[in-house]
Amino acid sequence: MAKIAIVYFSGYGHTAKQAEAVQQGAAGVAGAEVNVFRIDQDGNLPDTAWEALGAHDAIVYGSPTYMGGPAWQFKKFADTSSKPWFVSAWKDKLAAGFTNSASINGDKFSTISYFLTLSQQHGQLWIGTGLQPANQKQHGPSDVNWTAGFAGALAVSPSDATPEEAPRSGDLETARLLGRRVAEFAAKLAA
Amino acid sequence: MAKIAIVYFSGYGHTAKQAEAVQQGAAGVAGAEVNVFRIDQDGNLPDTAWEALGAHDAIVYGSPTYMGGPAWQFKKFADTSSKPWFVSAWKDKLAAGFTNSASINGDKFSTISYFLTLSQQHGQLWIGTGLQPANQKQHGPSDVNWTAGFAGALAVSPSDATPEEAPRSGDLETARLLGRRVAEFAAKLAA
Amino acid sequence: MAKIAIVYFSGYGHTAKQAEAVQQGAAGVAGAEVNVFRIDQDGNLPDTAWEALGAHDAIVYGSPTYMGGPAWQFKKFADTSSKPWFVSAWKDKLAAGFTNSASINGDKFSTISYFLTLSQQHGQLWIGTGLQPANQKQHGPSDVNWTAGFAGALAVSPSDATPEEAPRSGDLETARLLGRRVAEFAAKLAA
Amino acid sequence: MAKIAIVYFSGYGHTAKQAEAVQQGAAGVAGAEVNVFRIDQDGNLPDTAWEALGAHDAIVYGSPTYMGGPAWQFKKFADTSSKPWFVSAWKDKLAAGFTNSASINGDKFSTISYFLTLSQQHGQLWIGTGLQPANQKQHGPSDVNWTAGFAGALAVSPSDATPEEAPRSGDLETARLLGRRVAEFAAKLAA
Repeated sequence: MAKIAIVYFSGYGHTAKQAEAVQQGAAGVAGAEVNVFRIDQDGNLPDTAWEALGAHDAIVYGSPTYMGGPAWQFKKFADTSSKPWFVSAWKDKLAAGFTNSASINGDKFSTISYFLTLSQQHGQLWIGTGLQPANQKQHGPSDVNWTAGFAGALAVSPSDATPEEAPRSGDLETARLLGRRVAEFAAKLAA
Repeated sequence: MAKIAIVYFSGYGHTAKQAEAVQQGAAGVAGAEVNVFRIDQDGNLPDTAWEALGAHDAIVYGSPTYMGGPAWQFKKFADTSSKPWFVSAWKDKLAAGFTNSASINGDKFSTISYFLTLSQQHGQLWIGTGLQPANQKQHGPSDVNWTAGFAGALAVSPSDATPEEAPRSGDLETARLLGRRVAEFAAKLAA
Repeated sequence: MAKIAIVYFSGYGHTAKQAEAVQQGAAGVAGAEVNVFRIDQDGNLPDTAWEALGAHDAIVYGSPTYMGGPAWQFKKFADTSSKPWFVSAWKDKLAAGFTNSASINGDKFSTISYFLTLSQQHGQLWIGTGLQPANQKQHGPSDVNWTAGFAGALAVSPSDATPEEAPRSGDLETARLLGRRVAEFAAKLAA
Repeated sequence: MAKIAIVYFSGYGHTAKQAEAVQQGAAGVAGAEVNVFRIDQDGNLPDTAWEALGAHDAIVYGSPTYMGGPAWQFKKFADTSSKPWFVSAWKDKLAAGFTNSASINGDKFSTISYFLTLSQQHGQLWIGTGLQPANQKQHGPSDVNWTAGFAGALAVSPSDATPEEAPRSGDLETARLLGRRVAEFAAKLAA
C-alpha cells in the first residue's frame, strides 16, 4: 500500500490532462492511493492539502514551462514548502515530475531540473521515466517518449492546440507510465 | 550614454543591499543612467516600470535563492515578461544577474541559471562577473569573488545575519564590479 | 572587421554539418573572418589552433549531446582551456553554442548549459539565437527554430538518419542565423 | 545485503579522499559490500570493472569540478556507459554523486547536475545528502554540510591546500553520511 500525491499547476488545461494521465498510471498499481492537488491561479493550496501532503510516500510535481521555468504559481507552492523543509517533513519521500509546453524542446529541461533541485532540498529520492527515447525517422507525437524525457515526463502541446487536441497520445502514455513507475517504487520504499 | 535597469526582489533586505551595490557600480560609469525597479511582495511592478524597462540597454536580474531557485515574486515578473517577449521587445539588450542566500553554496547556481535561461528566451546577451575566484586558504568573505560566481554575482548572508551584517564587504564589492562591467558593455553595445 | 572561431567536435558527421551552417552564416557578414577548429577523436587540437583562438573576437562552441552532455572530446578541450582561463585570455570575447542529437528533446539543454557555464568561467559574453520558436501544429523540421533553442542552436538528427539526411533544413537555417548573429555582434563589440 | 559501487576520477588526490569517505560511510552499514572503481588519467576503466558495475545495486559518481563541469576523464566514462544504457542495464539502480573544487561555490552545482542527468538517462533513482545546511555565522569548514549540498556531497579544497589538508573535516563527514545514506537505501530497494 503506497500513497502518491500529485501537485500541479495548469494554466490552460494541457498540463491538467498530463496530470490526469499520471494519476491514471499510478492508480492502476495494486494498493496505490492517489491524491491530486491542483495549485490555484494565485499559487495557493488549501491548508488541508498542506497537511495531507506530509502523509504521502511520493510527491509528483507538475507545471507548464513558462518563460523557461515552472509557472510562478508552482514556484509559490515551492517557496511555501519551506515550512515542511524546515522540519525535514518530506525527507525520504519519492519525487518525480512532468511538464508541458508548446515547443518540442523549449527549455522543458529547465523546469524538470528545478523540480529535481526542489526535491533534493527536501531530501527526497528522484525517479524519472526510465524510458528509452523514440528517435527514429518514423517516430512522432503518438510514440511513447518521442519527447525524450529521462528525468521527467515531457509533453508538447502546439501553441494553437486545445487541451482536447494535445498533449497527444504518446505524451499521455509517457505520463501514464511515469505514474505507474512512481507508484511501484513508492510501494517498494514504503514496504 | 547607456541606460541600465536593475529589476529585483528582496524578502528580508539582504538582496536589496546587493542590488544597491550593483547600482553603485553601474552609476560610477561615465554617461550611465541607472534605474532600479523593486518587485513588490505580490510579485508586481507598476505599469510605468514595465513601459520604462523597454527603453533600457541592459536589464540586470536579482533575487534571493529560495528553495533552490528565484523567489516566486521574481518568477511572476518573469512570467509577466511574456508580453515583451511576444514582440521581442527586449531582444539584443544586455542581461546580467545576482543572487543572495544563507548558505555558501546552496543552489545559487540554479537561480543564476534561471536568469540566464530567461535572458535567452528574450534574445538578450548575457554578461557575467568576468572575475577570477578568491579560493586560497587565506580567503574569506571580505575578498572579491570569494563566492566564485562567474555567470553572476553571488552573495552569502548567514541565516542569523541582519542586512546590516551581510552581504559582507567582498560580496558587495563583487556586486559593484558586476554593475560597472554591465554599464561599460551596455555603452559599448549602445554605441 | 571581426574574427570568429568555431570550435567543435563531431562523432558521425551530423554536428559537422551544423558547424558548416554556422560558418556559412558568419562568413556572410561583411568583414567577418571565420576559422573552424575541429577537435579530433582524442579530444585534441593542434598547438597552432590554441594560439590562434586567443586572437578571435568570438568563440562558438559545438558538440553532439552524448549521454546528457557534450562529448568527452569537447570536455577535454574545455579542461585544456584552463590555460587561457588562468590568464583570462578569452575574457570579453563573445561566445555562442550549438548541439545536435537524435531525439527532439533529449537533454540538449544540458549541453548548451555547459557551454554557457564554460563561457562564463572565461568571462565571455553569451549570445543565443534570438529567435522565436516555430511551435504551431503545422510546424516541423523544415521550419526555423522548430527545436525552440534560445540559448543556442539545437538540431535533431534521428538515430537512423545519415549526415546527408539530417540535420534538416530548418535546423541548418537556424545554425546559419546563429552564425550571422554572432558575426554581427562580434563586429559591434570589436569596434 | 546491498552492493554499492563508487566510480570516480581524481586529478590531484582531493576527490580521492572524498571518495574514501563515501566508501567508509557505505561500508559501515550492515550487509553492505562496497567496491571502488577509479577512472584512470586517460578516462578508462578495466573491462572487469565495466562487467562488475552491472551487478551493483547503487552506483555513486564522483569527479572534481574542472572548468564548470566533471573532468573529461569522467565524461569519457559517461560516454562509454552508452553501452549499458543501450540495453537499460543500470535501470532502477540507485545513484548519487559528489564533487570537489577549490572555490566555495564555483559551479559545483553544474557537476552534480550532470551526474543527475546521466543517472536519469540510465533510469536510475537519485538520492542526495538529505542534510540541512550549516549556514549560520558560527559555521565553517568543520561543520557537516557547510557547503550546502543537497543533490550531492560538495567539498571545498582551497587551491593551495594539499590532499592532507583538504577536503576538511566537515566535508569528509558529509561524504561519509552520503555513503551511509546510499547504502541504507540500496538495501531497502534491493530487498
